[in-house]
Amino acid sequence: MKAVILAAGLGTRMGTSIPKPLVKVAGREIIFRTMKMLSEYVDEFIVVAGKNKDKLDSFLRGKFNYRMIENPAPERGNGYSFYLTKGIAGEKFILVMGDHVYEVDFIKKAVKGEGLIGDAKPAYVDVDEATKVKCRDGRVFEIGKNLESFDFVDTGFFVLTSEIYEHAEAIVNEKEVVELSEIVRRAKLPVTEVSGYFWMDIDTPQELKRARKALVRSAVKGSGDGYVAKYLNRKISLRLSEFFVDHLTPNQMTAVSFLSGIIASLSLFISIPLAGVLYQISSIIDGCDGEIARASMRRSRIGEYVDSMLDRFADYLFLFLLAYVSNLGIYLWMFLAFAIFGSVMISYSTEKYKAAFYESAYAAIPSLRFLVGKRDERIFVIMIFCLFSLVEPLIILLAIWTNVRVLLTFLVIYKTKRVESREIG
Amino acid sequence: MKAVILAAGLGTRMGTSIPKPLVKVAGREIIFRTMKMLSEYVDEFIVVAGKNKDKLDSFLRGKFNYRMIENPAPERGNGYSFYLTKGIAGEKFILVMGDHVYEVDFIKKAVKGEGLIGDAKPAYVDVDEATKVKCRDGRVFEIGKNLESFDFVDTGFFVLTSEIYEHAEAIVNEKEVVELSEIVRRAKLPVTEVSGYFWMDIDTPQELKRARKALVRSAVKGSGDGYVAKYLNRKISLRLSEFFVDHLTPNQMTAVSFLSGIIASLSLFISIPLAGVLYQISSIIDGCDGEIARASMRRSRIGEYVDSMLDRFADYLFLFLLAYVSNLGIYLWMFLAFAIFGSVMISYSTEKYKAAFYESAYAAIPSLRFLVGKRDERIFVIMIFCLFSLVEPLIILLAIWTNVRVLLTFLVIYKTKRVESREIG
Repeated sequence: MKAVILAAGLGTRMGTSIPKPLVKVAGREIIFRTMKMLSEYVDEFIVVAGKNKDKLDSFLRGKFNYRMIENPAPERGNGYSFYLTKGIAGEKFILVMGDHVYEVDFIKKAVKGEGLIGDAKPAYVDVDEATKVKCRDGRVFEIGKNLESFDFVDTGFFVLTSEIYEHAEAIVNEKEVVELSEIVRRAKLPVTEVSGYFWMDIDTPQELKRARKALVRSAVKGSGDGYVAKYLNRKISLRLSEFFVDHLTPNQMTAVSFLSGIIASLSLFISIPLAGVLYQISSIIDGCDGEIARASMRRSRIGEYVDSMLDRFADYLFLFLLAYVSNLGIYLWMFLAFAIFGSVMISYSTEKYKAAFYESAYAAIPSLRFLVGKRDERIFVIMIFCLFSLVEPLIILLAIWTNVRVLLTFLVIYKTKRVESREIG
Repeated sequence: MKAVILAAGLGTRMGTSIPKPLVKVAGREIIFRTMKMLSEYVDEFIVVAGKNKDKLDSFLRGKFNYRMIENPAPERGNGYSFYLTKGIAGEKFILVMGDHVYEVDFIKKAVKGEGLIGDAKPAYVDVDEATKVKCRDGRVFEIGKNLESFDFVDTGFFVLTSEIYEHAEAIVNEKEVVELSEIVRRAKLPVTEVSGYFWMDIDTPQELKRARKALVRSAVKGSGDGYVAKYLNRKISLRLSEFFVDHLTPNQMTAVSFLSGIIASLSLFISIPLAGVLYQISSIIDGCDGEIARASMRRSRIGEYVDSMLDRFADYLFLFLLAYVSNLGIYLWMFLAFAIFGSVMISYSTEKYKAAFYESAYAAIPSLRFLVGKRDERIFVIMIFCLFSLVEPLIILLAIWTNVRVLLTFLVIYKTKRVESREIG
């Protein structure tokens, strides 16, 4: 399937000289986001550009398989831009606006739709400014910005068949300025509802900021989060990520997070309560790399690997130095050995699951989520005990807690998978 | 695609009353092996049975999608059995003997072939007893047990088209006893060579034993083996597995292996050298569950998970008790903390890789195999030091060795995957 992207708009209200499709939202250019998400379904893109053709071309080169069409008369409207793709888009194709931002789940639903994709209750769009659609028998009846009553808001995403070009041609022959909405009305396109997902058209810096916030917030992974991450850390890390997403890469953020863990550990030589607080802060920062990676579409497997390895090193360093600065006796070093083993094994017990079953343990076995002892929870408890310099009870607690948690994880996984994975061969 | 299985033979030379297709080789019935491996390519099996019909039926029920055809006159030969499947096998289908054992890589190649699948240098078959094939222009010219010169040995595996039934019908109308080889010769089947893999037809208890040995030996996984596993442990564990494969399930073998690790650890209270030897023995036994699982086609993801978790527990227990019985001072307990962390992290560093990249680290990055420090290697070194009761140098060595190995693993993985996994999105 091919996809037509209308990218001839100038974006004069953005207050920058960058063509609107190339404006970055949460670290990624608007058109890159759409094309990257669509490339799972689309084998060739047809990008209609205006005066911004060269800038778009030099940005897209080498990134996607695309063909560039220049609209020599952008003042004739987006319907005219669309008409220029006649004869090259194929029998069935996608049409999408180059200045709209969508979340990935919207795209997944929308590509399966037919005709105009409409949102019945858009949560992020300024409805006054939006193009509204009134239906009759499941098809477009009226469309425009000033409809008094309407059924859907036009999401700027269409799944079309080539016959729409006949309607486009008729209007092009009649009028100088051709609006896409007029073609849509004349073609009486069917309407498919895709509601409840994030999408926006971006016209102003305020809308850009709103989109960034929404994208960062939709980037929380969730299934591996403990209670402290969910109710405390994420609330802060999301604000940090909103701030950093346009300035730091996920890998840089991982480095910052690791460094903050090292600083927390080394500050044990100064003050145990201070170190506890810094450790909790580093635990909050630790959420940002993943949030930024997902929001800016820069996730990578190696990033996940490095992040997870560094977390284990930082946790080991903190526990070891905590014991070291506290002049523990032999018996407490024995407990420390248990606490260190248990802390690593909590991660091992779920990562080994993923390595064996190729699925997330927390997603596949939801009851595992109730087992308290994930990193965010351990660090929060460590901070509390450090605030009162209760090192010895903390180490005994961790020795027991982490190993009980590992044993329970092991038993829950064994009980759940023993039967279903028998006889796989 | 469908597959016809000729399973009417009686197996009188096996010295048992069990129908030959139901004889177990390395823990699995011959016909189960073939059908299980073929079920990746085949949607329906057509099993031709003789007097053994009821036994076969009650064994196969619920395991595969099959249709049973009874040959009321098995004395008319295997060609007659085959002829009875006329009209139900489809346009293109597989024909395979129910008393032949194949390794999985043979099947993978053979299903892509055409006509008779021939082996030019069969390594396991008694060639005097085998059916030999002489070709002309890539097709069967002569076939029989007593050919003086020949190009291939008949593997009992065929990929056929329905036109072969015309030749079968002609012979059935001419003769009382119909040999499959005569149909093959008349049809002038094309021949596809698949050489160098394990396959056998099993007629005698001696051949059964030879097949068991070959299947166990082909079951060594390999890519995660250290030097000690490769050059010492596997040589012994394979013999143990040959002995146990017909008696213990892989899970029972995992339990035996874990128990032997616990016994080794507890024997530290008696004698450190003895414990070291027992620990090395448990490391050898640890190879058997995987060997038996693969040889008997009983691999399971949960088996892999449990085995790997229990290894970590056993390793922790041994190191902890070794330190405990040795009355170490504070500083050595510090080194022990490092040694325990490093030991778990060696496994974590490769399992986390598999969880992130969905591929084996050792298979994907072969240079990792040269990093000494896998479990078999650590345990062997632990045994050597224990033999001389050199506990303190051992713990210092492990603290440094394991952590250096983890660091190197981390760096090799980072260096290899940093570039190729950039921008995955």
